[in-house]
Amino acid sequence: MNAKGRVTLPIEQGMDDQLPGILSRLGADAVRNSDGTWLPEITAQLGVKVYETYFPARGQQDFALANPDARPRFYLMSERVAAPATGPLSIDIMKGYYKLQVEPDQGNLRRWWEVIDRTTGEVVPVDGWTVEGEGVDVTVTVAEPVPFHVYTVNFLAWQVWDSTQMYNYITNNWWDDESRVREIGYDARHPVAWEFMKSSLRAWCEERPEVDVVRFTTFFYHFTLVFNDLGKEKYVDWFGYSTSVNPLAMEAFEQEYGYQLRAEDFVDQGFYNSSFRVPSKVFRDWIEFTTRFVCSRVKELVDIVHEFGKEALMFLGDNWMGTEPYGELFASTGIDGVVGSVGSSATCRMISDIPGVKFTEGRFLPHFFPDVFRPGGDPLAEANESWLLARRAIARKPLDRIGYGGYLSLAVQFPDFMARVEQICDEFRSIHDEGQGRRPQDAPIRVAILNAWGRKRTWMTHMVAHALWYKQIYSYLGVIEALAGLPFDLKFISFDDARDGRLADFDVVLNVGAAETAFSGGSEWLDESLAVALRRFVHEGGGLIGIGEPTAVLANGAYFQLSDVLGVDKELGISLSTDRYPVEQPQHFITADLDDAAKVDVGEGAGDIFAVNDDTQILRLTDKSVDLATRETGNGRAVYVAGLPYSFDNARLLHRAIYWAAGREADFDAHWVPSDPGVEIAVFPEAGKAFVMNNRTDATSTTVSGRAKGLADGGDLTALTLDLEPMESRWIDLA
Amino acid sequence: MNAKGRVTLPIEQGMDDQLPGILSRLGADAVRNSDGTWLPEITAQLGVKVYETYFPARGQQDFALANPDARPRFYLMSERVAAPATGPLSIDIMKGYYKLQVEPDQGNLRRWWEVIDRTTGEVVPVDGWTVEGEGVDVTVTVAEPVPFHVYTVNFLAWQVWDSTQMYNYITNNWWDDESRVREIGYDARHPVAWEFMKSSLRAWCEERPEVDVVRFTTFFYHFTLVFNDLGKEKYVDWFGYSTSVNPLAMEAFEQEYGYQLRAEDFVDQGFYNSSFRVPSKVFRDWIEFTTRFVCSRVKELVDIVHEFGKEALMFLGDNWMGTEPYGELFASTGIDGVVGSVGSSATCRMISDIPGVKFTEGRFLPHFFPDVFRPGGDPLAEANESWLLARRAIARKPLDRIGYGGYLSLAVQFPDFMARVEQICDEFRSIHDEGQGRRPQDAPIRVAILNAWGRKRTWMTHMVAHALWYKQIYSYLGVIEALAGLPFDLKFISFDDARDGRLADFDVVLNVGAAETAFSGGSEWLDESLAVALRRFVHEGGGLIGIGEPTAVLANGAYFQLSDVLGVDKELGISLSTDRYPVEQPQHFITADLDDAAKVDVGEGAGDIFAVNDDTQILRLTDKSVDLATRETGNGRAVYVAGLPYSFDNARLLHRAIYWAAGREADFDAHWVPSDPGVEIAVFPEAGKAFVMNNRTDATSTTVSGRAKGLADGGDLTALTLDLEPMESRWIDLA
Ligand SMILES: [Mg+2]
Ligand SMILES: [Mg+2]
Ligand SMILES: [Mg+2]
Repeated sequence: MNAKGRVTLPIEQGMDDQLPGILSRLGADAVRNSDGTWLPEITAQLGVKVYETYFPARGQQDFALANPDARPRFYLMSERVAAPATGPLSIDIMKGYYKLQVEPDQGNLRRWWEVIDRTTGEVVPVDGWTVEGEGVDVTVTVAEPVPFHVYTVNFLAWQVWDSTQMYNYITNNWWDDESRVREIGYDARHPVAWEFMKSSLRAWCEERPEVDVVRFTTFFYHFTLVFNDLGKEKYVDWFGYSTSVNPLAMEAFEQEYGYQLRAEDFVDQGFYNSSFRVPSKVFRDWIEFTTRFVCSRVKELVDIVHEFGKEALMFLGDNWMGTEPYGELFASTGIDGVVGSVGSSATCRMISDIPGVKFTEGRFLPHFFPDVFRPGGDPLAEANESWLLARRAIARKPLDRIGYGGYLSLAVQFPDFMARVEQICDEFRSIHDEGQGRRPQDAPIRVAILNAWGRKRTWMTHMVAHALWYKQIYSYLGVIEALAGLPFDLKFISFDDARDGRLADFDVVLNVGAAETAFSGGSEWLDESLAVALRRFVHEGGGLIGIGEPTAVLANGAYFQLSDVLGVDKELGISLSTDRYPVEQPQHFITADLDDAAKVDVGEGAGDIFAVNDDTQILRLTDKSVDLATRETGNGRAVYVAGLPYSFDNARLLHRAIYWAAGREADFDAHWVPSDPGVEIAVFPEAGKAFVMNNRTDATSTTVSGRAKGLADGGDLTALTLDLEPMESRWIDLA
Repeated sequence: MNAKGRVTLPIEQGMDDQLPGILSRLGADAVRNSDGTWLPEITAQLGVKVYETYFPARGQQDFALANPDARPRFYLMSERVAAPATGPLSIDIMKGYYKLQVEPDQGNLRRWWEVIDRTTGEVVPVDGWTVEGEGVDVTVTVAEPVPFHVYTVNFLAWQVWDSTQMYNYITNNWWDDESRVREIGYDARHPVAWEFMKSSLRAWCEERPEVDVVRFTTFFYHFTLVFNDLGKEKYVDWFGYSTSVNPLAMEAFEQEYGYQLRAEDFVDQGFYNSSFRVPSKVFRDWIEFTTRFVCSRVKELVDIVHEFGKEALMFLGDNWMGTEPYGELFASTGIDGVVGSVGSSATCRMISDIPGVKFTEGRFLPHFFPDVFRPGGDPLAEANESWLLARRAIARKPLDRIGYGGYLSLAVQFPDFMARVEQICDEFRSIHDEGQGRRPQDAPIRVAILNAWGRKRTWMTHMVAHALWYKQIYSYLGVIEALAGLPFDLKFISFDDARDGRLADFDVVLNVGAAETAFSGGSEWLDESLAVALRRFVHEGGGLIGIGEPTAVLANGAYFQLSDVLGVDKELGISLSTDRYPVEQPQHFITADLDDAAKVDVGEGAGDIFAVNDDTQILRLTDKSVDLATRETGNGRAVYVAGLPYSFDNARLLHRAIYWAAGREADFDAHWVPSDPGVEIAVFPEAGKAFVMNNRTDATSTTVSGRAKGLADGGDLTALTLDLEPMESRWIDLA
């Protein structure tokens, strides 16, 4: 294979002889350093692009130490403490926090702090409490608390240690390494810091003519990451804006939005506006406000980079808050590319679908680090797992580039691994080459995921921190993961979009998640206009797929507010008096490809789900609870699934459920869907070809049928039988 | 054994020779007939009391047919139906109902019916809808519904078939039996019906000088029991008042309470005020109002019975609504006794604890019916199971009498069974004889179950219909079942009691149940005075035991409103960003008697429970979720258990948890608690004896230690080892 390019490799010193051969073999056209490695002098002669990492908001400790007022801040909440029978209540606000990370900011605390009675939700007047102590030992005393009410203190605090550097420092145990300092960040809102950021970047660019691509890691505000008194993670939200707050910003906000912000707007009862919370109006305003600020300042930094003829690449992580890659403003920053870590099909699409950038790049696993690249380690298996998940996403919407990180000198000690990487790079490039730069054809069914966040959290739902497994989310994340490799034009839309008539743009809408979350919708469903929009959509021919606890909020005699459409509702323990006679009728189009529909894995399930009446077809019943059901309502259809962890079978179930919900099941057998759910196909009708992927790690044989025109109607039906090697991908001709 | 009495047997014709021997052998001093049997002529010479069943509100079909206006009514709700995009909406209100049971009552329907928009909760003005049809085919049309809103009709309906007789008729398939009519009831509110009820009873008593005890089955209003269009049970609530409603009553209510009742007050969004619902003020008023009416009329009937020198016995079931045996008015009826079916320890206590009656009687299982008394049937096993559960309850609070029902001629064909019944009767009487008429001593710990119902639902919590198993309740019913045989002075108290200072009367309070139910409390916990009363109680030294989802309602940053006291809260999926590091510390006083604390059975559990901080001791953790935890707060203590199905081990766990919560664990080993949780003891210090029960069906050996003064402090500690036969009970001397 001679195709080259689209691959970034980490290189290091001491491998000068091998580097040209490795780069050529893998077709790498860009190189980067990694934490703890430096680019070799030979780099300039390799004929490849050079990436180098840049930190705008930390790393220059002298500046940070000289400008303590420029440190970033965040809002924190004390523990919940009950007031005694008589007398005042003292709260040690730092209890449970890490004193090397957090220092209460006592500047104008009567304006910026709040003491709240959490038994009633009422704010204690500022004259009702006092603050004693300084530095990291601070006590708040409520003079006359209501006996046995529970109180908390919302306080603004300085971040006295950068979160990511702290994480690395603690994880790598740098305590005795005198070359390491505890890095302090600085806030782009601070005028001196901002001027410093710009001049520093300019100087840095000037000093590095050899660098082609500035890899920003990242910009200003870190996602929320707070440590506990033992130096362990206490609160993490990869989507959190808690660290973007400071008095200057809050005052500017008030000027612009016409209302005052409160500490509680950020503390949010201790939930800190986690992305699982139905977002408040104020929080959405704050995101918009911060994004405008961040994007305009990012643009200024990108402009500097461009002045020097370099490209600007953003790492999707760390200090990425306010960039909002799926927001309206991101393209205006002029950023050239986005690079992010690929941990799954969904995170791959999260990168590759970002609109308005010149290129996207996925950093693949495994990282060339000694935890995997050691005697007994199996980097090959990790590479395969990562690639199989990424490939199906890339086949739907290609990343422009892929790359690796870590120490190349380690990786080359595993020749099998390097050979596999070579194959992966070739396979990746073939998707660009054979697909002729086009996306594969989508099924003629327009699909939307409906939640409180909509487009802003495209591919970013149900996640706490990047790709971490939680018992409470995997049954919903599986839906996103499945869709990341399925042939649908998928949009993420918000409840506001639904109310504003956007449902008309779709054939099938999914509402996925646990009750009370932003993804199911919680209190949003108390607004009848939302339920009416969905009910109209289905009655007039649309398809609704509910997974978990869709449309759930207890009101007016129902828990699922669209129980009449979905055909199911959840028993909370207050309607046990109603007799139910559920009957399983398992035969259905949507389970037709499963070996054993009885074994459908609904993950954690959704509790006790019942059919509201006999018009609901129950496909799977476990312990009298409905796991899977369908229903026709008006001219439309609905499907209910109790949970959908990612698996080949579940992806197929969802694939079919979407066809059925759209009333398009008659087309299914002519749409190039392999009989084996472990095989997927991306169809490129303009090229007259299709990319067949065996997602299994063993060989398989599958049949598939379709027409030369792809998923359109024209042409004769061709039926093929394909024998595929383990993990094989293959280009086939459609005709 | 010579002791006689306290036993009622069903007898029948054709056994004259055997009867005296059987009665003597079992010590029976009363006889009754059963459905389908008649007392033999010999009865008067048997020297025993004679019971006969009486139905005040049905059974006289001529009267019922002549007085259709006297038929009882109920409130029902139609299906939920969505309005179309344009035009009117027609609702077939009888869809899903049984036309042989239900006939819409169109009298003054503009006053008594309601059409409700269930999407908003708003009532449609009466001019906005019309009714077409008559009899059992009735359609309501909403002229201008809001498109895609969901509507229901609340309608008043005649009960055209008595619920219990319908149940028997359908169950026994009497359709082709021409001797059977479909019995219609009559309502005591109806003046003509009421006069008829009194005169009928008087005539009946006059005609039956041989009857000593009139067994009322029961009085006026049946518990809610509605059938579906296939003649199967559609809605059942053993505590439901839906059938006590009629316009006369509602008008009288309005006169007295000063406000108008609405159909929705009874329909309750389709939940029909199930006892699992947190009761509304209106529903509680209605219960009070109805109970005053029922009890005053019951008194008039009882007075008639007494006039004839007979006793009045009430069957606890069927038409028992408004008698409220644990209400203030029950004793004023003059009823002599209550008889009910014993299906468990808790249902036994539900009967035996009824205050203000001369005697209580338990009808034991198995019924002498052919379903059990057949070749291959095992009536002996059923008798043992029933007796073991009843015995531990009887040992705490004796029933005054026990009895059986059914066909004696069947039972005598099983000599082993009859021999066992003889033993059971003797064992039962020994509790009265040896206990010298006293209750056994309770532990010096005053215990309360706290819920929305309080005393009125003493032993009646978490039940849909008598002793039926539901997945959603068994994990809570186990608490009640355990307590029914444990040595505590237990009271059921309401949230109002707690707010009114009643907690001071107790050492340990339990809150048990699922979120949103009347038993956990749901929205009641939004009233801060309730949480404050409990928090004060614990801080000042009380013990709180929470089981399942105690104090749960999402507000002010907590789901369990007493999470600070219980030390745990529930993850709903909105606080996943908070890191948790739960550590199991299984060693604890409360699990000390369990072979393997790791195997504690929490039944259905309560979802994802987490410790709020490190001050909570987690005794058992499953999949990172807390099943069992303890915490000290202020001067008090709390215990959390995720669920507690009844078992010997769980009863012991609860026993110890109560001691620990009360701070009395140091006393435990001197309080006559057997080392084997399968053995229980009732201590009668005045008699100097204790009643030891082996609840196991196999032999066991157990140690036990205590003092001659029982559970008081005095006297030397005696330690015994007891070897017990399967199911054995034994009286031992304390000294
Ligand atoms: Mg629940
Ligand atoms: Mg009886
Ligand atoms: Mg949930």
